[in-house]
Amino acid sequence: MGVGEFNLIQACFAGQGGNPKSGTRLGIGDDASVHHLARGMELVVSTDSAIESIHWPNDFPLPQAADRAVCAALSDLAAMGAEPLYAWLNVMAQDSKSVSAMGDGACAALARYDVELSGGDTCRSLVNSLSVTVAGQLPAGTAMRRSEANEKDAVWIVGKAGFHALGLQQWMGGKKKGYFVNYLQEIKPKLEAGVRLRELGVRCCIDISDGLLQDAGHIADASRLAMDIDLSLLPGWDILCRKAGEKHALRAVAHGGEDYALLLTAPDAMRFLDGFAVKIGHCAIGSGVSLRVGKRSIGVAELGGKGYDHFD
Amino acid sequence: MGVGEFNLIQACFAGQGGNPKSGTRLGIGDDASVHHLARGMELVVSTDSAIESIHWPNDFPLPQAADRAVCAALSDLAAMGAEPLYAWLNVMAQDSKSVSAMGDGACAALARYDVELSGGDTCRSLVNSLSVTVAGQLPAGTAMRRSEANEKDAVWIVGKAGFHALGLQQWMGGKKKGYFVNYLQEIKPKLEAGVRLRELGVRCCIDISDGLLQDAGHIADASRLAMDIDLSLLPGWDILCRKAGEKHALRAVAHGGEDYALLLTAPDAMRFLDGFAVKIGHCAIGSGVSLRVGKRSIGVAELGGKGYDHFD
Repeated sequence: MGVGEFNLIQACFAGQGGNPKSGTRLGIGDDASVHHLARGMELVVSTDSAIESIHWPNDFPLPQAADRAVCAALSDLAAMGAEPLYAWLNVMAQDSKSVSAMGDGACAALARYDVELSGGDTCRSLVNSLSVTVAGQLPAGTAMRRSEANEKDAVWIVGKAGFHALGLQQWMGGKKKGYFVNYLQEIKPKLEAGVRLRELGVRCCIDISDGLLQDAGHIADASRLAMDIDLSLLPGWDILCRKAGEKHALRAVAHGGEDYALLLTAPDAMRFLDGFAVKIGHCAIGSGVSLRVGKRSIGVAELGGKGYDHFD
Repeated sequence: MGVGEFNLIQACFAGQGGNPKSGTRLGIGDDASVHHLARGMELVVSTDSAIESIHWPNDFPLPQAADRAVCAALSDLAAMGAEPLYAWLNVMAQDSKSVSAMGDGACAALARYDVELSGGDTCRSLVNSLSVTVAGQLPAGTAMRRSEANEKDAVWIVGKAGFHALGLQQWMGGKKKGYFVNYLQEIKPKLEAGVRLRELGVRCCIDISDGLLQDAGHIADASRLAMDIDLSLLPGWDILCRKAGEKHALRAVAHGGEDYALLLTAPDAMRFLDGFAVKIGHCAIGSGVSLRVGKRSIGVAELGGKGYDHFD
């Protein structure tokens, strides 16, 4: 006989996560949670799933996988410039031990970023997975959007790109203590940076979850312009090349998601962004994303295709 | 070569669901959606997962399973008395055809109840499943809660109980055209009823998703009182007994979830609830839920245990 669903939920989730927020009228435990929103503020909501064998390898520790899943969802709030408040967790687990492991990891991440666990759902499934829905707030009209880039903007990045992908390759290749493996553990949603960018007046931002090429492409498409990015200007580019070789570095940066750096555009004149963010390129009239290393253009063939696609 | 993740999302989800709401500042398509909340209103949020082989049989049509998953989530808003506004869908699918089938069903339900599809996530998984997060609104302080029953309240129900469970049994037993099977299709979140109950001043309500015994128990526990329910007063009790026999009727009502009836308590004097809701019992000092048929008490043994538990 197992531990029982309600005992399990009680043990794994009750009182876990960050502190209750002042906007919460009714927290976890009823059919739904109820929230107030302060005047002049807007609510920002995002949701993300993470699935064993797809988003993390089978032999990866479950608490860490769940921690990462929460961080990935929070990263979307960072990209909007929102202050995180609430999370709702759907935990789908093979057995009660897996509920417990995923609950621990998810709640640790919520506690770390002081996000209230406001509700959720726990079910048995053949595959361990989580769906994480998060909500935050920001002053009305200030959300950073993909569609707000201008043709004369420069392109900046906050954080690294490519490190996670190389860590995953090392892990999958049996090098569990490889140089890049600690970047699998070190996922940090750039929440403070997101708020600061918004406060500094940045209007256009995205988080790099699917690789620089795809995510820069989302800005270019939504804003109807072209982007030109010099990979040699990326933070840590020299380390990537030295440790993995330029070929692997290129592919990891272009297609490797889950470093959760923030990619933003802003007028070149906003030089106060330097030091905090790193300028890596510029926008232009046209369409699509051009990658180069210094003056050398990088073609799609050299990148080994267009990146990961769940249904290609 | 598959259809590609972004094409699939575009084809299955863009422009689907209900009409955009006036509170939406930024809809589906960015890192997150952004919403305004009218003054004096509160936001009500719930999330639910539905998994193939757990929540629906393998041979059940996927669009219908996804439609049901959305309705199940909306039912939680009904139980609070909230007007539904937004949904975020996590679709986890074995292949692109399954994404499409689940997308169709989910969006059909959202369109039927005019709920805006505000965001989501589509991933490959070994098991078809969905997580559905929904949000609605109601005037501040009016949400119906499990904890608000009083010892002198009567107990009412809006909708049927037990019909879905018997339909599922018939389906699983190969009687795909059995009498109760159409109740598998006919899931209807009681959204209008929920709003009306709240407007009438009802303070305590829950939706029956896990069976009358468990869900009445949630009210009894949260409100720290006892409940006494006469099953013979349930809408359709005579049909259940005639078609399935009293033994099966008892178990289906006690443990069979997913009819999504609303169970509420209110002072006996609120007789205007009659006709709209059906009185089936009363609250009392004490703890726990007593079920009877007329004057005959029903014990746990007769009910074949305490009901479904994901991890027991």
